Amino acid sequence: MKVIEGGVTAAAGFLSASTAAEIKYKNRQDMAMIYSETPCKAAGTFTTNIVKAAPVKWDQNVVKNSPFAQAVVINAGIANACTGAEGYGYCKDTADVAAEVLKIPADAVLVASTGVIGMQLPMDRITAGVKAMAPKLDGSTESGTGAAQAIMTTDTKKKEVAVQVELGGKTVTIGGMCKGSGMIHPNMCTMLAFVTTDAAISKELLQEALSEDIQDTYNMISVDGDTSTNDTVLLLANGMSGNPEITEKNEDYETFKKALNYVNETLAKKMAGDGEGCTALFEVTIVGAESKEQAKILAKSVITSSLTKAAIFGHDANWGRILCAMGYSGAIFDPEKVDLFFQSAAGKMQIIENGVAVDYSEEQATKILSEPEVTAIADVKMGDATASAWGCDLTFDYVKINADYRS
Amino acid sequence: MKVIEGGVTAAAGFLSASTAAEIKYKNRQDMAMIYSETPCKAAGTFTTNIVKAAPVKWDQNVVKNSPFAQAVVINAGIANACTGAEGYGYCKDTADVAAEVLKIPADAVLVASTGVIGMQLPMDRITAGVKAMAPKLDGSTESGTGAAQAIMTTDTKKKEVAVQVELGGKTVTIGGMCKGSGMIHPNMCTMLAFVTTDAAISKELLQEALSEDIQDTYNMISVDGDTSTNDTVLLLANGMSGNPEITEKNEDYETFKKALNYVNETLAKKMAGDGEGCTALFEVTIVGAESKEQAKILAKSVITSSLTKAAIFGHDANWGRILCAMGYSGAIFDPEKVDLFFQSAAGKMQIIENGVAVDYSEEQATKILSEPEVTAIADVKMGDATASAWGCDLTFDYVKINADYRS
Repeated sequence: MKVIEGGVTAAAGFLSASTAAEIKYKNRQDMAMIYSETPCKAAGTFTTNIVKAAPVKWDQNVVKNSPFAQAVVINAGIANACTGAEGYGYCKDTADVAAEVLKIPADAVLVASTGVIGMQLPMDRITAGVKAMAPKLDGSTESGTGAAQAIMTTDTKKKEVAVQVELGGKTVTIGGMCKGSGMIHPNMCTMLAFVTTDAAISKELLQEALSEDIQDTYNMISVDGDTSTNDTVLLLANGMSGNPEITEKNEDYETFKKALNYVNETLAKKMAGDGEGCTALFEVTIVGAESKEQAKILAKSVITSSLTKAAIFGHDANWGRILCAMGYSGAIFDPEKVDLFFQSAAGKMQIIENGVAVDYSEEQATKILSEPEVTAIADVKMGDATASAWGCDLTFDYVKINADYRS
Repeated sequence: MKVIEGGVTAAAGFLSASTAAEIKYKNRQDMAMIYSETPCKAAGTFTTNIVKAAPVKWDQNVVKNSPFAQAVVINAGIANACTGAEGYGYCKDTADVAAEVLKIPADAVLVASTGVIGMQLPMDRITAGVKAMAPKLDGSTESGTGAAQAIMTTDTKKKEVAVQVELGGKTVTIGGMCKGSGMIHPNMCTMLAFVTTDAAISKELLQEALSEDIQDTYNMISVDGDTSTNDTVLLLANGMSGNPEITEKNEDYETFKKALNYVNETLAKKMAGDGEGCTALFEVTIVGAESKEQAKILAKSVITSSLTKAAIFGHDANWGRILCAMGYSGAIFDPEKVDLFFQSAAGKMQIIENGVAVDYSEEQATKILSEPEVTAIADVKMGDATASAWGCDLTFDYVKINADYRS
């Protein structure tokens, strides 16, 4: 597997565009479009929140019932959630106008929105945006990057990744972009992530590969414990690499899945590391768990603990909060057997052994915890299972951003 | 039922004392003692965190196995959690010295600790503290207030309450104090709360009344979603009011339970309203739920949502976050039927009707949300059940306090 430059336009036949439609932001791009030159098999996973945004409902229907998908229209600034029948109508209107200018069926158009809940989309500006983007569709790396920037809300960095693998003698590319910074606690899926590939693969296996992989990637991150109304991952495969179509779980399928996992995990970590207001990516790895499920419960409990996150912000080796968060996770373990380590680019050190602090240097621990990516590793000594989760620190800026997000 | 002045010393025969033992803090009281002139029936509820502090284990044993309890020794500053066999030994040592100076059995002494996890107690100072407090035991209101102040950590206000009811022609008093400000997300029980009563009641009914009541009081508050290692509620009844002993679920039992509920709910709300760094008590009431259980799940999900809490800090009527938090709670409801209101001393106003915003004044909403106690009321129109939960806003000071708690 080779990591390459680019994002959603890296795979053959995928074009993108972006524009400043003034949905909510001024003086920046806030709409993006992805288009495939040929029809795609589409897979998707969506929020499990009972309160589902209109575009989530629209896309669930397209992924399930449309013969193919060929375009995605995305806006930042307004989530189109809690907008009733009027909001759902605007998804259809958006698809209609995109279908018209792109000369594809309306039910091949996916839509996605992110931003404030409860406001209606300004449809005149959405329509103008779609019409402005269609003639600008372009398969360059720069175009993909422009799209990744246009979908940002409180994100501070654009998030994209692409990889290549060989399948049946052909070079297959998978590329993706995502946004996500607040209201990030995916359950079954995540925020907005768009992954494109030129692999030929059956729709069933495409969906299965995605549904499985999100459990270890997007579902293992959290910024603030709030599961959004808009979480969406879309995976489009147009088959243009020319590889023999994957229709069974053979070696090609495993290779594809591994590459997909790299793309999803990379995008997920980029989201956690750019959580609202955060200064550090905080990774928690549980080793020696009885089962993978137990390891995941423990890891996720620690990365969602407000007290632990505040301690990471303070570069404070407050291991008691980590053990406490493991303790209330619901997983079963013996606290008096736990070993805990901190690790970063500045080194690795043991903090507790069998549940009690070893004689470690607070100064050295603070040095390790002052890096932009820090990891806590807990060994619960019960078995061989392992899992990682990714979050971020809790900072003044998280509060600042969210005390005044709407205005 | 009459609300009276005082706290743990309000009921007949209960004395308290406090002292500056320099456990961690300088220049303030940081140890407290409660003592009953006669043996008490003891009930207790404790953290469900797998990582249980040593005093929790000690007290569970006393409540379960000792014939009676007669004193409680409390320290602030060090939690005595994750301290292994050495830490548990210090509970026994504390009980031993208290037993010696108070001339009661060691297994009648309850202990409680709160503060930083992972440090060992300085036993010389604990011992000196116990010896200093015993001669100062006093049943005055001021003495009870001193104890309520001594058990504070990041709390900014002492928390106590007392009520009186008539049982079998006798005036029965229930009084209590508590502390709690961070790591507050009780599960099955709570932080440190100490309730004393001169009621005569069987040990079985005392425990049953307490176990039931915490489900609607302490278990319905949250400051930061972190369930502590030290959560403890102790309820001591010495029977000195002379009421006919309550041994069955008669009218006296119901009167006692109602008074106990007032004491526990008041203490719980005081904790939520004094959450670390907070500027407002945030109450969420769900009405029209299918069952009480569903109403509780919904209410608690909203008060634990970081995004909602930050919006309350910003006096921002960001109702989308409230609906979102209800949506991921796990409870079943139809988002398109929900009505939502905000209420405070500044008035009450409807924000959404049937899941969509009504034409409300943002200015008026901000005014309502700028009070020190604000309530959100959501009607899900499915039945008659109702429940309330209490939390607080998420502020810069929460982050500040917890980024640097240990130092």
